Amino acid sequence: MEPGPPGSSRPTEPGPCLSAQRGADQAASASLQRAARAQPGRQPLAVAAVLPAGGCGERMGVPTPKQFCPILGRPLISYTLQALERVCWIKDIVVAVTGENMEVMKSIIQKYQHKRVSLVEAGVTRHRSIFSGLKALAEDQLNCKLSKPEIVIIHDAVRPFVEEDILLKVVTAAKEHGAAGAIRPLVSTVISPSTDGCLDHSLERARHRASEMPQAFLFDVIYEAYQQCSDYDLEFGTECLQLALKYCGTKAKLVEGSPDLWKVTYKRDLYAAESIIKERISQEICVVTDTEEDNKHVSHLLEEVLKSELNVMTSDFQETQKLLSMLEESNLSFLYPVVVISVHFLDFKLVPPSQKMENLMLIREFAKEVKKRNIWLCGLLISYPQDEQKRQESLRQGAIVIASLIKERNSGLIGQLLIA
Amino acid sequence: MEPGPPGSSRPTEPGPCLSAQRGADQAASASLQRAARAQPGRQPLAVAAVLPAGGCGERMGVPTPKQFCPILGRPLISYTLQALERVCWIKDIVVAVTGENMEVMKSIIQKYQHKRVSLVEAGVTRHRSIFSGLKALAEDQLNCKLSKPEIVIIHDAVRPFVEEDILLKVVTAAKEHGAAGAIRPLVSTVISPSTDGCLDHSLERARHRASEMPQAFLFDVIYEAYQQCSDYDLEFGTECLQLALKYCGTKAKLVEGSPDLWKVTYKRDLYAAESIIKERISQEICVVTDTEEDNKHVSHLLEEVLKSELNVMTSDFQETQKLLSMLEESNLSFLYPVVVISVHFLDFKLVPPSQKMENLMLIREFAKEVKKRNIWLCGLLISYPQDEQKRQESLRQGAIVIASLIKERNSGLIGQLLIA
Repeated sequence: MEPGPPGSSRPTEPGPCLSAQRGADQAASASLQRAARAQPGRQPLAVAAVLPAGGCGERMGVPTPKQFCPILGRPLISYTLQALERVCWIKDIVVAVTGENMEVMKSIIQKYQHKRVSLVEAGVTRHRSIFSGLKALAEDQLNCKLSKPEIVIIHDAVRPFVEEDILLKVVTAAKEHGAAGAIRPLVSTVISPSTDGCLDHSLERARHRASEMPQAFLFDVIYEAYQQCSDYDLEFGTECLQLALKYCGTKAKLVEGSPDLWKVTYKRDLYAAESIIKERISQEICVVTDTEEDNKHVSHLLEEVLKSELNVMTSDFQETQKLLSMLEESNLSFLYPVVVISVHFLDFKLVPPSQKMENLMLIREFAKEVKKRNIWLCGLLISYPQDEQKRQESLRQGAIVIASLIKERNSGLIGQLLIA
Repeated sequence: MEPGPPGSSRPTEPGPCLSAQRGADQAASASLQRAARAQPGRQPLAVAAVLPAGGCGERMGVPTPKQFCPILGRPLISYTLQALERVCWIKDIVVAVTGENMEVMKSIIQKYQHKRVSLVEAGVTRHRSIFSGLKALAEDQLNCKLSKPEIVIIHDAVRPFVEEDILLKVVTAAKEHGAAGAIRPLVSTVISPSTDGCLDHSLERARHRASEMPQAFLFDVIYEAYQQCSDYDLEFGTECLQLALKYCGTKAKLVEGSPDLWKVTYKRDLYAAESIIKERISQEICVVTDTEEDNKHVSHLLEEVLKSELNVMTSDFQETQKLLSMLEESNLSFLYPVVVISVHFLDFKLVPPSQKMENLMLIREFAKEVKKRNIWLCGLLISYPQDEQKRQESLRQGAIVIASLIKERNSGLIGQLLIA
């Protein structure tokens, strides 16, 4: 449903294991190329983004503000920044965070190597935070790192699955209309209560839309609107499109967005985000197997079975160590936990698993070591009997175990030696 | 955030392992007792529920209609039915399904032992399906199993987390006002587009609400409204409260609901629902350990460590087999997969794990057997060295593995022997 990995900043030459791609990734890549050709206005257009991230996450029911809640160990906002950063034509990203979260944010930027990100102090409301971001981008500011863009995108820190496609659409529409925003159909009917807490009237669902993010504006339009608007607007308003309409007479173009644009609001949304990210990153795998000639055939068979379990391409590697060094050199494992499964084939009748097991117990120590680099190592012994039917069964079982480990990305199983 | 397990139909005398409860469960149970005392109107009130389930799930992006999508192997609608069934004062539940899904629905009712459920054929729209359900409840119907209720609840098949509390609130309010419905604050600003696809105006968020389910009505009010309403309403309307207002002049009371009321709409919502259910059912665990006297102490220690990992009470059992029989007798394992972990303590220096392992390999065969009954069995060898610090470390590691297996409920790991 949601094509392509979220903000997947794949290295240009990722090596064989990472070159295994699915259709969805290829589509995302094609979209990037299209976007490069179709750069807004077909001439260099200065585009910046402002990300208000000053919220305290009261609706989440957890003490950490939602934009800082970890998903697979990495704060949500880092996924959103990654999604914006992989769009090459967004020049600057200004994030507004509260004073108390400034240091946290700085360390996130450093740890996950975010580029093009500047920080400003958030205001007490969403509108005030956006205004702070806009001020930093305005020419008259002392901060010489930033320059005034022609178009500014406003997005939410808690919408990590934004795609380049919709960013391009709102920017293009803003260039033409002065303002543009993504919309979605309403999920629930909207009603207006009377003062006594009863139904006054319900709104016709087909005639209304939910206003989502991203939105984009000619910088001068939205900056003017914020400069003109009242304190009441800054305190209680939420809708930037409305400010552009009210203070500059700019009627925003509305652009239909995909379901991906949803905002992480409740705890259940964190669960959903984690599952989506797990599903996407599990589309790229490699299998580490024995290199002995005898086992090459069976490795190949396993790959065949795996393809049906995971719907992926797999690649062989001669040495686990080589793979692990390569992973370290790539920037994959600091963005996502990388699951590595060392697979060994064994005829349990000829070699009891316990015999092999003693050696393989070493995997636990090794796993502890590489875990520090966000690489999650497991071992898998696959029984490889003479009987063809039994062999197929144990390969299938092995594929199920591998698929589970990769899909669930369960850190509790690091260093385990599993048997199929 | 969402207290209590979803529709947890716990047996009255569940035995020791199931008596382990968390605060949330106790709260849910207390709420049940309160509800029994506070039965609407403090006198027997005939209440039925209608569940339109004729949708085709077009927004889900999956071929199966969303109400039939499996969560931990069980269709979503079964969770919703369970949530309604555990409310003892709801007498009948009428589900409207399309002709083509009638057999599927019948088999769900049989497999998961749903009681009090009657089926009617859904119409082509949501309103027509509800109308079918109401007709079946009206006295003049031939179907003698059902009788006309005083109050009818209308709920969605795809809102499985409805709590008794809100059901009671809408029923009580409907008794007084004729109609009532749950509402939630808006997550996004709602806007009204002009015909050229631009912003016409945005609605003030604070003055509007999302209309959610459940809703409740005096049966005569809503049945009258459906009999009076136009074909246009039946085709294009979605809001029952609006029909009661338009055709009977009944102004519905609006009741603030909890975030639990959300509707499974997109694929991400299925992920969220699965995570919530996993989290809730993982709050009840028991640990099967060796019964040798020597190990009693360490079992106790493990329990202590586990409490901090899982925040649960644990109970000992003398024999795995006894536990498994008990599970079979309860109706837990057909509703949810039950994870059983057989834990063994071993000083790896004195007894190499490989030695014990041969015997424990038998667990795989046993696991295959009990899997048929939805019981997921794993083994865990916990190293138990003399050194106090190392012992603590391996107990902690054991607790992490157990917590992982229970929280993630990963079927791919059934029959594995893990090591800590």
